[in-house]
Amino acid sequence: VPGEKPHVLRDEPESVADVGEFDLIRRLATLLPPSGAVAGIGDDTAAIEIPGDEFLLATIDAMVQGVHFENLADDPRRIGRRLLAANLSDIAAMGGRPTDALISLALNPETLYADVAGVYEGIAAMAAEHHVTVVGGNVTRTPGQVTLDLVQLGLVIKQHLVRRSGARPGHVLAVTGSLGAAAAERLLASADVTSLSSTLRADLAHAADPAPRLAAGQALAEAGLARAMIDISDGLAGDVRHLAEASGVGLTIEAEALPVSNATVVAAAALGINPHDLVLSGGEDFELLVALHPEDVAAAQHAAAPLPLTVIGSVEGAEDGIGLRVGGKRVPLTAGGWEHF
Amino acid sequence: VPGEKPHVLRDEPESVADVGEFDLIRRLATLLPPSGAVAGIGDDTAAIEIPGDEFLLATIDAMVQGVHFENLADDPRRIGRRLLAANLSDIAAMGGRPTDALISLALNPETLYADVAGVYEGIAAMAAEHHVTVVGGNVTRTPGQVTLDLVQLGLVIKQHLVRRSGARPGHVLAVTGSLGAAAAERLLASADVTSLSSTLRADLAHAADPAPRLAAGQALAEAGLARAMIDISDGLAGDVRHLAEASGVGLTIEAEALPVSNATVVAAAALGINPHDLVLSGGEDFELLVALHPEDVAAAQHAAAPLPLTVIGSVEGAEDGIGLRVGGKRVPLTAGGWEHF
Repeated sequence: VPGEKPHVLRDEPESVADVGEFDLIRRLATLLPPSGAVAGIGDDTAAIEIPGDEFLLATIDAMVQGVHFENLADDPRRIGRRLLAANLSDIAAMGGRPTDALISLALNPETLYADVAGVYEGIAAMAAEHHVTVVGGNVTRTPGQVTLDLVQLGLVIKQHLVRRSGARPGHVLAVTGSLGAAAAERLLASADVTSLSSTLRADLAHAADPAPRLAAGQALAEAGLARAMIDISDGLAGDVRHLAEASGVGLTIEAEALPVSNATVVAAAALGINPHDLVLSGGEDFELLVALHPEDVAAAQHAAAPLPLTVIGSVEGAEDGIGLRVGGKRVPLTAGGWEHF
Repeated sequence: VPGEKPHVLRDEPESVADVGEFDLIRRLATLLPPSGAVAGIGDDTAAIEIPGDEFLLATIDAMVQGVHFENLADDPRRIGRRLLAANLSDIAAMGGRPTDALISLALNPETLYADVAGVYEGIAAMAAEHHVTVVGGNVTRTPGQVTLDLVQLGLVIKQHLVRRSGARPGHVLAVTGSLGAAAAERLLASADVTSLSSTLRADLAHAADPAPRLAAGQALAEAGLARAMIDISDGLAGDVRHLAEASGVGLTIEAEALPVSNATVVAAAALGINPHDLVLSGGEDFELLVALHPEDVAAAQHAAAPLPLTVIGSVEGAEDGIGLRVGGKRVPLTAGGWEHF
């Protein structure tokens, strides 16, 4: 029966895997007292009223051993960069600038100090690039997997705040940078592919290095061009759905328009997979999807420069649902995004 | 050899357990860019400059399965209350009032939805008591132990901010509420003690229920009476040391003055342990330790009322170290408690 999970018996208690990540968030939110925040659960960050002409932004993101990395020792600096980047990308999607961060570590007693220090060096390097200061945190023991949480605070001028909910039929959708490199690199690491040159692998590593799009997000927000914006690091296919739901619209993504680097195309060919799959559901692309008035495209590209900003689709009525145009044909685009359960 | 860990070979890489929690925090902090925060790592919360007459406070605390609880199902509402209380107690220690919270969940796929909902109901009930709203968060999968992080934001009028560093020789030390009930209850749960009445167990459960001292913390701060303040939920013996180090002072705690409820005294007797041990190193007492000018004691007790505020010691010069006066004799008080001679 479509839509039913046959392995769940009727009387078995419901697990969080049965509920699924996004339904879980929705159901838990109903248990909480109503929030007076300007933006809250269901946006990239919370936006909180404070005195003065700015909103306070706040967001948290986690990395768990066995899910987001296998061992700290594999590449602790990259794990630190990735942890901060995920949060900075959320701040970027609101049009904000990051300020202070807090770090919460759950460490196995056997975790090597040098590896934790490596994570901190990665965080510190990226923090310095973006003028972020770490003002506090927490350390606890865990008997199991190392779990890293980072809280990022930020600010945005009130009239520049961009939410997920401002997309309207007739807008176009554009995306920063290029997509799919992180997924390609991740798949290559576990595949037995020997045909790729070291130059290509270096290009891929460069494209996959987490680089939150703060400058572009702020420029698009300050110019008043971004009608809606979202970070797409959970995977484009899932994240366009979040934007569509928040805005109450449908949309079409043009497969042929998706920006993919040459290195990603070559890696996809070596892996024997369609690069569109990497782009649509690979995840870990710390890029921004933005809804624009069609007359604003050139101005938006100018604002985002030197970062490329590529039109990849259009906003439609909710009745049109979410589609992918590929080979001239529009097919439904499902949330093959990064469902975490 | 005293001070040396004989099981660590000279060439073995150093683990976080070798380094220890507080050295780890100190060493990691040196890897980060300098922070412009008014208060940061080494206070109960960070205090951040924002426009207007208040500082923004921010803190994070975690609960890990296998460390802070065995299974969510054991008492999910209590776990939720405890998670929020730990953060609110940190806000209280700065003299602040809590505002918004974010929750980060790392859940095993097999975690039951009903248990997570129970945690949220516990958080929601305590949040409503203290006018806290949950504005966002994160959900991720973990292959291992459930890990819960909560971020609490707050505000404090700038001139009312209380830090750990304001204690001076000649001040007295006072503590809110009574101590040791949570440790007594925890030990009873794993001991085979059948001699205690249900009334006494109910009294103990009531005393052990997490109740952050926000009203008392704010009243002491607003009246300008709290010279230094710290949350003592990590255990009095360790937390007085943090206050002493931040203030550059020594201090003496009077064992006979420590406020212990009758239920805790009876429970300690049934467990065959000294109630002072529960109080000094049991932990989970969400009470505040405050340094006061001796002339301010009556006013401070009036400000904290109806909560008891008990003088338990005095601040001395750094050269005196940290001591416990018991049976008329002053003995060194270590972070783990005191040496039973």
